[in-house]
Amino acid sequence: MSLVVMKFGGTSVVNTERIMRVAQRLIALKEVGSGVVAVVSAMGDVTDELVAMAEEISPYPPEREMDMLLATGEQVTIALLAMAIHSLGHQAISFTGPQVGIVTDSGHTKAKIREVRAERVRAALDQGLIVIVAGFQGVTEDGHITTLGRGGSDTTAIAVAAGIGAEVCEIYSDVDGVYTADPRIVPSARRIDVVSYEEMLEMAATGARVLQLRAVEFARNHGVAIHCRSSFEDTPGTIVKEADESMEQAIISGVTHDISEAKITIRDVPDRPGVAASVFGTLADANANVDMIIQNVSESGTTDISFTVPKEDLARAKKATEKVVLELGARRWSLDESVAKVSLIGAGMKTHPGVAAQMFRALADAGVNLDMIATSSIRISCVISAAEVERAVRALHSSFGLDSEEISAEASPACGEGADGGVG
Amino acid sequence: MSLVVMKFGGTSVVNTERIMRVAQRLIALKEVGSGVVAVVSAMGDVTDELVAMAEEISPYPPEREMDMLLATGEQVTIALLAMAIHSLGHQAISFTGPQVGIVTDSGHTKAKIREVRAERVRAALDQGLIVIVAGFQGVTEDGHITTLGRGGSDTTAIAVAAGIGAEVCEIYSDVDGVYTADPRIVPSARRIDVVSYEEMLEMAATGARVLQLRAVEFARNHGVAIHCRSSFEDTPGTIVKEADESMEQAIISGVTHDISEAKITIRDVPDRPGVAASVFGTLADANANVDMIIQNVSESGTTDISFTVPKEDLARAKKATEKVVLELGARRWSLDESVAKVSLIGAGMKTHPGVAAQMFRALADAGVNLDMIATSSIRISCVISAAEVERAVRALHSSFGLDSEEISAEASPACGEGADGGVG
Repeated sequence: MSLVVMKFGGTSVVNTERIMRVAQRLIALKEVGSGVVAVVSAMGDVTDELVAMAEEISPYPPEREMDMLLATGEQVTIALLAMAIHSLGHQAISFTGPQVGIVTDSGHTKAKIREVRAERVRAALDQGLIVIVAGFQGVTEDGHITTLGRGGSDTTAIAVAAGIGAEVCEIYSDVDGVYTADPRIVPSARRIDVVSYEEMLEMAATGARVLQLRAVEFARNHGVAIHCRSSFEDTPGTIVKEADESMEQAIISGVTHDISEAKITIRDVPDRPGVAASVFGTLADANANVDMIIQNVSESGTTDISFTVPKEDLARAKKATEKVVLELGARRWSLDESVAKVSLIGAGMKTHPGVAAQMFRALADAGVNLDMIATSSIRISCVISAAEVERAVRALHSSFGLDSEEISAEASPACGEGADGGVG
Repeated sequence: MSLVVMKFGGTSVVNTERIMRVAQRLIALKEVGSGVVAVVSAMGDVTDELVAMAEEISPYPPEREMDMLLATGEQVTIALLAMAIHSLGHQAISFTGPQVGIVTDSGHTKAKIREVRAERVRAALDQGLIVIVAGFQGVTEDGHITTLGRGGSDTTAIAVAAGIGAEVCEIYSDVDGVYTADPRIVPSARRIDVVSYEEMLEMAATGARVLQLRAVEFARNHGVAIHCRSSFEDTPGTIVKEADESMEQAIISGVTHDISEAKITIRDVPDRPGVAASVFGTLADANANVDMIIQNVSESGTTDISFTVPKEDLARAKKATEKVVLELGARRWSLDESVAKVSLIGAGMKTHPGVAAQMFRALADAGVNLDMIATSSIRISCVISAAEVERAVRALHSSFGLDSEEISAEASPACGEGADGGVG
């Protein structure tokens, strides 16, 4: 029996009508002889509503209790979905994360999965039941309920797929796959058929929101293929899997962009050993995630350090920067919130020299000024002005031959923001 | 350290403001040195809303999934209440029924508690935490979530009190205790200070809705004293406990009434052995709860059988009756939905002959006609016309000297219907 895990996000189960549609889809797959497991998120805005209630009570609710609260969202969905399947004449059973044996560390609100004890899922599949699992939640070794943070339901789905040895984990959302660029910016963007884990990781890290970074990491670490597809259409989407010989190695897989970061520059820092350690140590202590880092040595024996941080960490990052500027005797620092990061991702880059040069030329021809540059073996990212991001993405997409022959004007929103609603 | 379990129903936690008030009450008790456990229901109408959602999907949702769904209601409340206590600077921890170790049978939607493994509650109390427990829910030996049915949160509270050896289980609701009669019918009704388990059981069985029958049974079986009191006032309420020498043995403790039953009469049933067994066997098979039963032997060698059933079981009871009438060759049957049951309850009845005679006299003087009579050692119940129920209750309350000296016009609604909202 082939085993399939299907994950449905908040917009796919936003009301009872949509839940019935998901039930029909699960039954259709079951009827062709597969073992079917569904992993679901909370309905639509339920998680946001629960958070709002908690905030009425306390601005800083204890995270353990936040998890206790939020875990109810997915539990409602699994019960209703199991009922929907029964009402259509088929057998189903629902399990919470703790019941399935999603064992996590105790990092409440962003717990990491340590182990999946999938015996109950396997036993239920052996009985011929469709199995419904609550995404986004787990349990610590000593029995406290945890949640997995943003993208948690995807991670649950992949973990369950790994736990039961499913061939594929299908992630359903309101976008039908991963695109070569955000179709809202580049109408000629194409859906990618197959992409390697490594490329998908770079895409997720640089702005594509179809899949969360940690879900892709989990899939890579456990060798689970992901199929990203639409909840509303029956067409194939994008497969994310181990790179192999058969996979067409495009030089460039896609162009991503991200306007969620801000840039901080500290100027005239004394150029002595340990300065960078001191700056980024202070930022890490303040729990501010630093993305790109550039240090320029100036002629005067002082140096400028620039880095980008997510805007949501900005308040903490500013405080830490003020502190470090004082400690180091640096003269001044500046903040730019109107920056964007545009990235080229492609496994073929490794074996094709000149990609960076072509990228910079294309941006220059489009009149886009480069502010910071960072590279990995399969990615080149540039920080530019936010005002120029659409122009930059279009120029790169076209320069690297990613445009489809026929411009698909009605392409779905994808890379960039189309991800399914809810934190789960 | 004295241990107190406090139970708050749906109306006491209907919104975040009320939840804050409950938190303050728990902290006040904690600060005088007690170990405090709170058991809470779902907020206000949450349970009804969940049921409505399930009904949108299926008229007959599987009971296991119904329990999965409904258990989320209490889980939301415990998380918010723990947050509220934290926001007031105190430490608390919440537990679901499964986490507390409320082990039940597998009778989904009306499971019975088999065991309470209260180690986690005890450990948390030893750490000085206020412990918040979700009422109404438990878990089977093989890990399925169950709910305890109507009055389930009261039962949870009493079970936890028994499990940790608490002195008393305080049940807070919108009524401030058990009354000698429903104050909406008898303005001179008095709140009862102390009542025995046996009397409370009879009262609960005959219409008093302050406490559910099974919660009282559980308390009696485990020797837990119950203190029924108001969520909104700080006055003492009614204590329910083992009858002892010190307890004043009133001849009559109270008058209850119940208009939730209907009466069915089967006429001209052949008077031969096994007839009653056949009638009530068929009703039991149809899952119709029969309350009072009367059989009159007529002169003609046939007999009439009358019985009452809860109106909610009426559809099933009618079907079963039609079947049995045919089988027995009885000639006809009739249904009366306009009946009421009025009951006198009092442990002193055992040693005071003449109570029944005085009851029938008082009703006759009030012009109330008796339809059926049933007695236990501490209760006499009469079925009368529903139109006469208020007159009957007032006549009995006055005849047995239960009226308070000063008529308390603003007495809270109590015995009869005041119980806290929600099924939990």
